[in-house]
Amino acid sequence: MTYELFYHNRIQGRGEFVRLALEDSGADYVDIGRGEEAKGQGSPAIMAILNGQGVVHPPFAPPFLRHGEIMIAQTSNVLHYLGPRIGLAPTDENARLFLLQLQLTVMDFVRDVHDTHHPISNTLYYEEQKDAAKIAAQKFLEFRLPKYLGYFEKVVARNPSGARYLSGGSVTYPDLSMFQIVEGLRYAFPQNMAKAEVNYQRLIALHDEVAQRPRLKAYLVSPRRIPFNENGIFRRYPELDV
Amino acid sequence: MTYELFYHNRIQGRGEFVRLALEDSGADYVDIGRGEEAKGQGSPAIMAILNGQGVVHPPFAPPFLRHGEIMIAQTSNVLHYLGPRIGLAPTDENARLFLLQLQLTVMDFVRDVHDTHHPISNTLYYEEQKDAAKIAAQKFLEFRLPKYLGYFEKVVARNPSGARYLSGGSVTYPDLSMFQIVEGLRYAFPQNMAKAEVNYQRLIALHDEVAQRPRLKAYLVSPRRIPFNENGIFRRYPELDV
Repeated sequence: MTYELFYHNRIQGRGEFVRLALEDSGADYVDIGRGEEAKGQGSPAIMAILNGQGVVHPPFAPPFLRHGEIMIAQTSNVLHYLGPRIGLAPTDENARLFLLQLQLTVMDFVRDVHDTHHPISNTLYYEEQKDAAKIAAQKFLEFRLPKYLGYFEKVVARNPSGARYLSGGSVTYPDLSMFQIVEGLRYAFPQNMAKAEVNYQRLIALHDEVAQRPRLKAYLVSPRRIPFNENGIFRRYPELDV
Repeated sequence: MTYELFYHNRIQGRGEFVRLALEDSGADYVDIGRGEEAKGQGSPAIMAILNGQGVVHPPFAPPFLRHGEIMIAQTSNVLHYLGPRIGLAPTDENARLFLLQLQLTVMDFVRDVHDTHHPISNTLYYEEQKDAAKIAAQKFLEFRLPKYLGYFEKVVARNPSGARYLSGGSVTYPDLSMFQIVEGLRYAFPQNMAKAEVNYQRLIALHDEVAQRPRLKAYLVSPRRIPFNENGIFRRYPELDV
């Protein structure tokens, strides 16, 4: 049965972590937010669910996934559901819990990245909170970036199946998310990442291996991959990359 | 087998969402962070796992749970694991996914509350980011508070089992978390909550019902319940409650 992904149509955002999993697995899916309104897709289809009176399990916000009768929101939850179904997670409960734990930590990392350019409120423009953003970004780069990357580097190093993936002996969905994290950080903080990467060689090797997976590689050069831009989570503001 | 909770010993924090579930269910558990160092507990026991070389599934941060050989981190993940085992979630997959979705949204809410007093960085004192905090709190109270509370009110209203709980016909772990959210908001923002509560009567009724559950009621007046204080997530700074 076709997976239907509901997410904003002009940013990678949190939806990209789901897109990467669906693309890498070759799953049959529709990116509803990017479809034509004439076909009942596009932004109105997202709003119809967010505001619809009849939705029993309403999402708080995109991304969310519909799979037949099932509607699931929250990025990590969507990936937890998809993982074993699309070959990106084992079925063993203990292994699945660890993947979910890793993905939740990725999403905390993502929130921290987002808050470097919007520390005070999403309802204010970046320009209205730029001074606070400069301090937030400096503290993020000094403390949070090495803490998160050091953690994931450690997780790969300790993997009992060999220090190649975050968990187990093959790619799982948090590995794809780690690829996206490295890509995003290189986009947003090129100066700082150029200096930092030497400390996270296992993560960089993981990133490089993921980038070569045939379906993912094809996706990344396709028009389906939305370029990074200054409306998303990872934004290139040179004044924050000092 | 005894559940071992690892969390800071002087704040409710994110660990409280796990404590409430363990207490309400009458589960056999030890709050390791609050135990005696002479017994191998207390803060050193937490640090030993965070920094231990032999931990295969290392946590990024507290809270985390040990259950026999299994180690699980991330609050929502811990509750997802515990839920069916302690009678606070059904075993049906679709129902469990919705509970996890709700808990993840609770944790996003918690992060937003935290960031009202620490918008720029956790590495700075509140007093160093007070001006930014005033704006952040104002925007939170105007936009985010009604969005979150309105969402959860809607979820209760739409519950096909009757508009009493967030999901199903009996208390599940996100209901306990919603109790904590109401308690925390009343502590941190008494003026604003006094005005807002009339709009969320189902959530308040849920809060009141949870508060009367015998084991939870006994816990709340016991020394095991750490009082709200200005080191936790919910802080009473009158200048932010305007």
